[in-house]
Amino acid sequence: MADVARRAGVSMATASRALSNHPHVAEETRARVLAAAEQLSYVISPEASRLAGGATDRVAVVVPHISRWFFATLLEGLESVLRDADLDVLLYHVGDAADRRDFFQRLPARRKVDAVVVLGMPIAGGERDRLESMGVHIVAAGGQVEHYPSVSIDDAAAGRQAVDHLLFLGHRRIGMIAAIDPIEPGWPAGPGRARAYHEALIEAGLPVEPGLVVTVPWGGLSGADAMAQLLSLREPPTAVYAHSDEVALGAMRTLRRTGLRIPEDISVVGIDDHPMAELADLTTVAQPVREQGVAAGKMVLSLLAGAAAPGAVVPTRLVVRGSTAPPGSSPARSAAPRRGRR
Amino acid sequence: MADVARRAGVSMATASRALSNHPHVAEETRARVLAAAEQLSYVISPEASRLAGGATDRVAVVVPHISRWFFATLLEGLESVLRDADLDVLLYHVGDAADRRDFFQRLPARRKVDAVVVLGMPIAGGERDRLESMGVHIVAAGGQVEHYPSVSIDDAAAGRQAVDHLLFLGHRRIGMIAAIDPIEPGWPAGPGRARAYHEALIEAGLPVEPGLVVTVPWGGLSGADAMAQLLSLREPPTAVYAHSDEVALGAMRTLRRTGLRIPEDISVVGIDDHPMAELADLTTVAQPVREQGVAAGKMVLSLLAGAAAPGAVVPTRLVVRGSTAPPGSSPARSAAPRRGRR
Repeated sequence: MADVARRAGVSMATASRALSNHPHVAEETRARVLAAAEQLSYVISPEASRLAGGATDRVAVVVPHISRWFFATLLEGLESVLRDADLDVLLYHVGDAADRRDFFQRLPARRKVDAVVVLGMPIAGGERDRLESMGVHIVAAGGQVEHYPSVSIDDAAAGRQAVDHLLFLGHRRIGMIAAIDPIEPGWPAGPGRARAYHEALIEAGLPVEPGLVVTVPWGGLSGADAMAQLLSLREPPTAVYAHSDEVALGAMRTLRRTGLRIPEDISVVGIDDHPMAELADLTTVAQPVREQGVAAGKMVLSLLAGAAAPGAVVPTRLVVRGSTAPPGSSPARSAAPRRGRR
Repeated sequence: MADVARRAGVSMATASRALSNHPHVAEETRARVLAAAEQLSYVISPEASRLAGGATDRVAVVVPHISRWFFATLLEGLESVLRDADLDVLLYHVGDAADRRDFFQRLPARRKVDAVVVLGMPIAGGERDRLESMGVHIVAAGGQVEHYPSVSIDDAAAGRQAVDHLLFLGHRRIGMIAAIDPIEPGWPAGPGRARAYHEALIEAGLPVEPGLVVTVPWGGLSGADAMAQLLSLREPPTAVYAHSDEVALGAMRTLRRTGLRIPEDISVVGIDDHPMAELADLTTVAQPVREQGVAAGKMVLSLLAGAAAPGAVVPTRLVVRGSTAPPGSSPARSAAPRRGRR
């Protein structure tokens, strides 16, 4: 701290106030101190900070979506572990980049948590500096986050399980509905699930036709639109791989409305094993979501106890239901009228 | 307070410690003080308490389910309002009666919130005493809660919109799949939605056949089982009213598997307008869920500002999709083979 103060040309007290984001520090001074701290890669150790500041017995959970099944289920698993350990959960919904900036700007202003758990979103460089200047533990779940212990699935491996299943069934014209979160377009889930498609087709010696890939914002209705786009091709795919079950369920609606039969005319596979997938007889690649939240909670407890908390990659598995089958011989045009199709 | 102490035969200090659930008070003493406080219906006024204890700028949210769409969406709306007001949200998942007792027992031990918002669950008498002894504001959302400002729908009115729609279409044999939350069997949503069914049939001069009513624990798979039970009748219903969309979606799976056509053979209507309802073409009675969370958040802000916060009942509306139609003339047995049914 003395080095930081010297380099920034301020008193120890000012340096300390600046690093703890104390209100009464000029922005220019704070910037100089943060810069000096960064140059010296000065980091308050969480333990030291907890001993100094004392434990708050609170953990902040940062999540980009609350009402979506995936994030709410991660949160439920995480909360159960933290509650059993008598830790309180402070919930922060950061809906967009501005919310996130705001959250990371303010959190250090009043160090009020012992750890921060980031669910299903990345952490940008500047945000890392903030988090680390707080001297709190950081854990991520529902996705790989650089520099921090994370628990997640292997998205590329999950995608391969889905596409390899379609290839094994004999499909050669396979469409992909790629879903990106408009809030986190760079989030690795999308790229990993997309890469799996390309790699699987190449390994199978099949061409990757750009027209068979539709990228839409995440969501069921987007999936419905994407499926319509695939049906506008001169030769639509015989099977569709969707990046998530909600997207796949939307695609199924479009197929139902056209009178096409699932799986006789077109097979559909998703990823997640959303509770609705079972009700829709959707074949999918299941990921253990609640378990990822539980694992993140246990990682927080280890870190707070001064122990190590290695990250983890949890396995996914194919769940075969009624929406996938070998390519049907019956051409779509021979499908019975729509009234028979629901 | 002096009266409470005198009646309990303890010092003011002890009475105060007992009421604030201070650790170093014998259970027997605490019980005597709480009893005295109750006899004198002694309640710390939230304002007084906040002046004394100071504002914590935290609000506790108590919810029986996190991962279910309805509760997560309420939470998302509530969090958005509280966050904009710079209040922190402490999340407490109380999965069962034991969790709830535990939550209400401990919360007063350290008064750390300015208000408690209860989402989609009742508050028992003993719990009320606890909450009120804390001197915090209390608001409920997603259901009517006695004694506290609540925002919710009118479940009986919503049920009437669903059943009256089926009656208008000409259905005379209408089944009901009643869903009860095993955690909160007494929760009024169920009874209100069930009463609507009975009242609608009676007004229409139709008999209420016990065999046409199946009550199951909440959930999609329960809905699937309940539909199977209705199909085991000598004369199944021509339309089914489900207490929630998830339950209705389960019922639709059973119908699809039997090869029965929706709506030609059997109509299905739900309540909620779950995002999946749109993807499944399910006719439903929509309730504004996020808005109920937002309204609860605004009620909290008014109460914290010392203003009044009247409860509210938000309107529901029928959303007609493809799962309801007049009773079809085509008997089920003439339905085409299953492969054509998806």
